[in-house]
Amino acid sequence: MTIRYARRMSRVHPSAIRELLRLGGDPDIISFGGGYPDPALFPVTELHEVYARLLVPEHAAALQYTASNGLPRLRAQVADRLTRDGISCTAEDVLIIQGGQQGLDLAAKLVVNAGDVIVTENPTFLGALIAFAPTEPRYAAVRTDADGMDTDHLEEVLAGHKDAKMIYTVPDFQNPTGITMSLDRRHRLIELANVYGLLVVEDTPYRPLRYEGTSQPTLKSLDTEGRVLHLGSFSKILAPGLRLGWAVASPDILERLALLKLAADTQNSTLNMAATSDYLSRYDIDAHIARAVPVYRHKRDLMLATMAERFPDDVQFTEPDGGLFVWLTFPAGFDATEFMADTLLPEAKVAYVPGATFFPVEQEPNHARLSFSGVPDERLVRGITELGRLLPRRPT
Amino acid sequence: MTIRYARRMSRVHPSAIRELLRLGGDPDIISFGGGYPDPALFPVTELHEVYARLLVPEHAAALQYTASNGLPRLRAQVADRLTRDGISCTAEDVLIIQGGQQGLDLAAKLVVNAGDVIVTENPTFLGALIAFAPTEPRYAAVRTDADGMDTDHLEEVLAGHKDAKMIYTVPDFQNPTGITMSLDRRHRLIELANVYGLLVVEDTPYRPLRYEGTSQPTLKSLDTEGRVLHLGSFSKILAPGLRLGWAVASPDILERLALLKLAADTQNSTLNMAATSDYLSRYDIDAHIARAVPVYRHKRDLMLATMAERFPDDVQFTEPDGGLFVWLTFPAGFDATEFMADTLLPEAKVAYVPGATFFPVEQEPNHARLSFSGVPDERLVRGITELGRLLPRRPT
Repeated sequence: MTIRYARRMSRVHPSAIRELLRLGGDPDIISFGGGYPDPALFPVTELHEVYARLLVPEHAAALQYTASNGLPRLRAQVADRLTRDGISCTAEDVLIIQGGQQGLDLAAKLVVNAGDVIVTENPTFLGALIAFAPTEPRYAAVRTDADGMDTDHLEEVLAGHKDAKMIYTVPDFQNPTGITMSLDRRHRLIELANVYGLLVVEDTPYRPLRYEGTSQPTLKSLDTEGRVLHLGSFSKILAPGLRLGWAVASPDILERLALLKLAADTQNSTLNMAATSDYLSRYDIDAHIARAVPVYRHKRDLMLATMAERFPDDVQFTEPDGGLFVWLTFPAGFDATEFMADTLLPEAKVAYVPGATFFPVEQEPNHARLSFSGVPDERLVRGITELGRLLPRRPT
Repeated sequence: MTIRYARRMSRVHPSAIRELLRLGGDPDIISFGGGYPDPALFPVTELHEVYARLLVPEHAAALQYTASNGLPRLRAQVADRLTRDGISCTAEDVLIIQGGQQGLDLAAKLVVNAGDVIVTENPTFLGALIAFAPTEPRYAAVRTDADGMDTDHLEEVLAGHKDAKMIYTVPDFQNPTGITMSLDRRHRLIELANVYGLLVVEDTPYRPLRYEGTSQPTLKSLDTEGRVLHLGSFSKILAPGLRLGWAVASPDILERLALLKLAADTQNSTLNMAATSDYLSRYDIDAHIARAVPVYRHKRDLMLATMAERFPDDVQFTEPDGGLFVWLTFPAGFDATEFMADTLLPEAKVAYVPGATFFPVEQEPNHARLSFSGVPDERLVRGITELGRLLPRRPT
């Protein structure tokens, strides 16, 4: 008799991102796929020093088990940073997690019974759909425009989905569109979540990477009833290979999340938590981020300028104020998945993430997500130029 | 309106182990609670070297995202080690996970629908009960004796539970009892799993820590139908603070586990995987384990000798051939939880894990789990002597 898998496994499938992470390993392919930070920006010298200081017999505790919620000193340092960003909190309010992604897994476990509705932006972060899938949710997708999630449409969606349990949003430089939610809509989203009794999951991995304009307040800082779960990550501002992120929420929610974290994997790497804590106390991470921002701004500008120069007029692209992603909209009828498989990859060895996979309900075939962060300048220009060359032109 | 938590949250509670990990942080308390390896055994100098070599600009990839299944070289090294232990496998058969604990979370997600039965040893590993809880299982517990899980009783239990989906076992130096399953019973367990179409989860964190006698074959090496999921960990043989373990299973199972791993947290720390891989290629981990074994053997012998000398005659204890734990059975009517809270902690500042929490169905109050691995000799003798002094004596 064969293994009888659980019902949830019918929802757990191989994803486009996973295949693209594989492509990313082929040095011949110019991949705009993964949301990789630029490895040239990793503070390697500083991390060399903090690991060298920790890996001595006096600090053997850095290799031992530690508290499941995370190293107390690191929790306090994260709380300090968030407090300066307008989220008044202490170490007790912070849970250290295995990158922001684990927060998505924990959030879905916290509130979603099979069949419950998760409300997302349309399109939304594919990694969130992957993380939520094992809880067997249904989805309701809210229209987005240049100001982010359309809260008038959100109100309609919530009125029609009384089984909604949470709203998932990436309010700053959204993945995949690069769009930032306006302040009015942030307030309105909180009001609606209050009315409908929802958990709000605010996912902010790109928030510190702003290239122009001024920050909007976080949803957590506007939270009037303690229903926002704020997720953040060191992946884009320090290094993804450490797998460190954080969750901040009201005590009731955080206590339950901490139990789910304990159940999932006991704790994060003690060594990586201790090293990151030491890094934060010995070095100035804000100065480090300030050095990264012009590098990414330059890459964004280079991508946008090359697109403006090389793309046909009927291809639209977003112009994000920060983050890692540009979102393309091709003319109706264009299939970005087929184009990449049949033309772009074989003829130019260029890859993006076809946009269809970011739509939780009705997939639109005529989009693509491109990341500018991890691609060297020359390859970036070459890849976008090739894309522009191969895109079909309307007959003139 | 308040947050409406998912139904599974009614199964997710604070645990005794979590409280004990906190106690472990109080230097005044002699804690036999956590299954901590001895930090004096961590190969700090060697790890210092491998991290120092990796944290240079040429190896910035060690700080980047990598393949979700784990670094290919580390997967191959784990496969080599397992092949030498009788599990014929290649890198493709290995998934790197966040310690063995994550394997338990993934295994339950793989096969358990709410209400399905997981079959365990009685008593069983508390951390497994914690990991399984979010999938809302029921349990059937199988009698154990000096040869491990009683497979005659297992047969009865399976005949009575057609809704059983998996058997969970720690066959080597079980947590909490320290008992090792006999070869006959290993074969019989596989036969029964075949008949009933079950997943077998073989959890082996302590397997390399054998202090006498010879190893039994793993269940995976006896697996005739590809239904054993073998879990192992670097926590007890290298350092728990790296959070590295592995899962080995047939391709069908491993592919699904890998998707669940991706959903849960994307990947393990690239840096810790690269460092562990370098450690394995530059140093001899078997020689390292061979240096640890006499240290733990000595601690086990010291604990058992002190118990024999100091305990009342009506207290029984196991004499494990390896691993980290000794299991105490007090006379019927004795409540080990109350005794620790009312007498042992306040009067002697000594802690163990009360045994009740390790029973998945009917809690027996008259047991305790003691770990000898992380306690210095003098404190070990003092703690056991104090425990012996405070235990009630039958009137003579």
